Amino acid sequence: MTAPAGHWPSVGARAVPLLERLVADAEALRLRLYRSPTGALVVDAGIEARGGLEAGRRIAELCMGGLGVVRFAPGSPATLSPFSVCVHASEPVSACLLAQYAGWSLSHGRWFAMASGPGRALAAREPLFAELGYRDHATRGIFVLETDRPPPDPLVAEVAAACGLPPEALAFVLTPTTSLAGSVQIVARVLEVALHKVHELGFPLARIVDGIGRAPLPPPSPDFLEAMGRTNDAILFGGTVQLFVAGPEEEALALADRLPSSASPDYGRPFRELFEAAGRDFYRIDRMLFSPAEVVVTSLESGRSRRAGGVDPELLARSFGG
Amino acid sequence: MTAPAGHWPSVGARAVPLLERLVADAEALRLRLYRSPTGALVVDAGIEARGGLEAGRRIAELCMGGLGVVRFAPGSPATLSPFSVCVHASEPVSACLLAQYAGWSLSHGRWFAMASGPGRALAAREPLFAELGYRDHATRGIFVLETDRPPPDPLVAEVAAACGLPPEALAFVLTPTTSLAGSVQIVARVLEVALHKVHELGFPLARIVDGIGRAPLPPPSPDFLEAMGRTNDAILFGGTVQLFVAGPEEEALALADRLPSSASPDYGRPFRELFEAAGRDFYRIDRMLFSPAEVVVTSLESGRSRRAGGVDPELLARSFGG
Amino acid sequence: MTAPAGHWPSVGARAVPLLERLVADAEALRLRLYRSPTGALVVDAGIEARGGLEAGRRIAELCMGGLGVVRFAPGSPATLSPFSVCVHASEPVSACLLAQYAGWSLSHGRWFAMASGPGRALAAREPLFAELGYRDHATRGIFVLETDRPPPDPLVAEVAAACGLPPEALAFVLTPTTSLAGSVQIVARVLEVALHKVHELGFPLARIVDGIGRAPLPPPSPDFLEAMGRTNDAILFGGTVQLFVAGPEEEALALADRLPSSASPDYGRPFRELFEAAGRDFYRIDRMLFSPAEVVVTSLESGRSRRAGGVDPELLARSFGG
Repeated sequence: MTAPAGHWPSVGARAVPLLERLVADAEALRLRLYRSPTGALVVDAGIEARGGLEAGRRIAELCMGGLGVVRFAPGSPATLSPFSVCVHASEPVSACLLAQYAGWSLSHGRWFAMASGPGRALAAREPLFAELGYRDHATRGIFVLETDRPPPDPLVAEVAAACGLPPEALAFVLTPTTSLAGSVQIVARVLEVALHKVHELGFPLARIVDGIGRAPLPPPSPDFLEAMGRTNDAILFGGTVQLFVAGPEEEALALADRLPSSASPDYGRPFRELFEAAGRDFYRIDRMLFSPAEVVVTSLESGRSRRAGGVDPELLARSFGG
Repeated sequence: MTAPAGHWPSVGARAVPLLERLVADAEALRLRLYRSPTGALVVDAGIEARGGLEAGRRIAELCMGGLGVVRFAPGSPATLSPFSVCVHASEPVSACLLAQYAGWSLSHGRWFAMASGPGRALAAREPLFAELGYRDHATRGIFVLETDRPPPDPLVAEVAAACGLPPEALAFVLTPTTSLAGSVQIVARVLEVALHKVHELGFPLARIVDGIGRAPLPPPSPDFLEAMGRTNDAILFGGTVQLFVAGPEEEALALADRLPSSASPDYGRPFRELFEAAGRDFYRIDRMLFSPAEVVVTSLESGRSRRAGGVDPELLARSFGG
Repeated sequence: MTAPAGHWPSVGARAVPLLERLVADAEALRLRLYRSPTGALVVDAGIEARGGLEAGRRIAELCMGGLGVVRFAPGSPATLSPFSVCVHASEPVSACLLAQYAGWSLSHGRWFAMASGPGRALAAREPLFAELGYRDHATRGIFVLETDRPPPDPLVAEVAAACGLPPEALAFVLTPTTSLAGSVQIVARVLEVALHKVHELGFPLARIVDGIGRAPLPPPSPDFLEAMGRTNDAILFGGTVQLFVAGPEEEALALADRLPSSASPDYGRPFRELFEAAGRDFYRIDRMLFSPAEVVVTSLESGRSRRAGGVDPELLARSFGG
């Protein structure tokens, strides 16, 4: 992470052709496109529009700033989920944390969403950007919002100002948690979730050279809490990530032990149950829980690897319903 | 299915760039291209030409009107078939039924084939098109034929007339059942076969919001009956499909019980044996047999899922020979 | 293989657009580009540059002359390697042997490397090219070198002369065995290794109609011998290939018995151990060892298949460390 900012790829610029293709294929992908009164482009991928698996896959790649590869694959540890989502990236820290991470808290009145996507790096409001010394200067601001209501116009104007762009240069892709596209683009975060926990653990991101992940595709639910629970559980109990880590071997391998979701005392029951037990207060849940079920860390210094955690088909079965 | 016809993507128009790339890569894909005396383009993918797995994969995506994604993946339930074909679509009903389904019966003298591909939607001779209120107006008519002989010229002229296009605007891709490309593009129908049975069961197609499927890649056989048997068995005993279904939960979950091949009384022996026992008369075989082995249906209304049927490695072993 | 040379696709010409995209995406793929004093393009994918999994994947497709498809997939027979590399090709003999095979021995002073990639077919110094009657006439010479030092300038000039091109028309992609990109592009040779053994066994390559393979992604090691050992073991103990073979059935099926690595008396311990025991002399190791662990051969003449060998999770565990 010592590279000067100019040496990082522009996640915003790389996402533009993906947005253009998404727009061109909107009908086939069953997306609804419109301009908000501010002039910002809104891509509805699951509110009034149907969206779908392929829409979610392409939105996931868009959300990774054009640096990610997201594919469906047969097989999964969950009986009720015979297919998985598999993800890797050209530059995983950029793709996952500078672009994909849902880290910018947006609110206006009672409207609230965590914004993800490459547009975050234009405003660079989150401490992470200063820490990584990154600020993007792309000419389009592209955001993915896990919401079932479009962002209010005054908020769009604020976001535009924060990005230093006119509202017409912004695009908001809306993928409700309860939608198919939402399910896909959320579980496509399995690698990002691992990198985010790496960062939470205070481990230097600069040492994460590469990674690849998979998680089962959870069945969506029309109930928001259940849908949120399942997308979390797909990662917490069904996700597998391999990281390739530079720096001292003992630190890399020790990371493996701390990384899986099972390293958290809150591990052990479906996320929705846990969330209810915590009085629906995210901040009462151990943030170390948010990680893939199974992790292999390979130390690039020594070539040794350590596997920790493990997928949990029983918890997946409880979560995914029947 | 209440959307006006104009709101459906044109499967014909979306297929054109895929046809152009197929033609441009003909040498590498080992396809033989020629113009029939009528002027129609013929793409031989397995008669005099070798074709192959990748040719079959690309023909499958072409056949789905440019709306499908077909990939090979490692693993399968069949010992003699270590790889699978995995398929999903931007818009599965359009991709699978308006384009991919082999539903237009073409014959001339003793020549006979069921035409599949987006060209069917130009002529719209099948009741399905009226039922779905769809007619395509693309400027190219693209067909995939599971045959080892090119269509006779008078038939090409008839097809052109039915499509309202000159013969030069037609393309016929020929993939014999016994060829590698044929094997691939047939088992890539695992999702289409599920949707077709959904329709046969009288379940409203408008409720099928999305789907994804996989089937083992069957070893081709030079014997037509054996090749046909294996491609069927790959789906009937080795295919897995997940459908995401709108509408009343109980109807969606009940669909799961009726959908797998094992729900048919004709289930239980390799297709070729069954076909011989039926005196080689398709119409004496229960049409409810034609479905994937294993089905997961997720009700989008409730978020509940039901799994029914199951893959059958022993029947696959008997079918795929040794 | 009786087709006149002109009927083969030009592996060199097909690789050019892939090289151009690699260069355009160099920053995102963490490649270092420079011109050697001779004017040749050097693409460092793991010496001073980080490279990564996706860089390796794209280099593998480049190395296959634009005829190959290389993808990551979840799952593998190795506990410490939860992901695999899956490979097939439009035209496997061209992709794997005319382009991907590391068959041109380059040396200058103490610098040595086996060159792979489509550029080999321009110089056509290996007997294989005469045997197959192939010589490429592309305008760019693209090579992949498994090395941690760039090729010396006088050698670059020699290679250019042998290719009949100016040095500026050459590109050398450097992927050390110890790098991530190296690991990926080496195990993406699982199908090539099978075809090469087919050739070594004296079996006519013209009968190999198609093939597909997968191998676990081995964890890289900074130790050259360990890295080399693991990439070999990923194929020898973890690789699976299916070949579709023309010609007499009995010869095709007999090929299955001779093809897997376990058919060699040298089979049975991690490659690095074996290499040390052979005094680090490759030529004392049975060349019949170099093959995938598990092979399915399908006879296109009869439709029968034979499976031989098998993956060996225990040997993979010993090799991949822990």
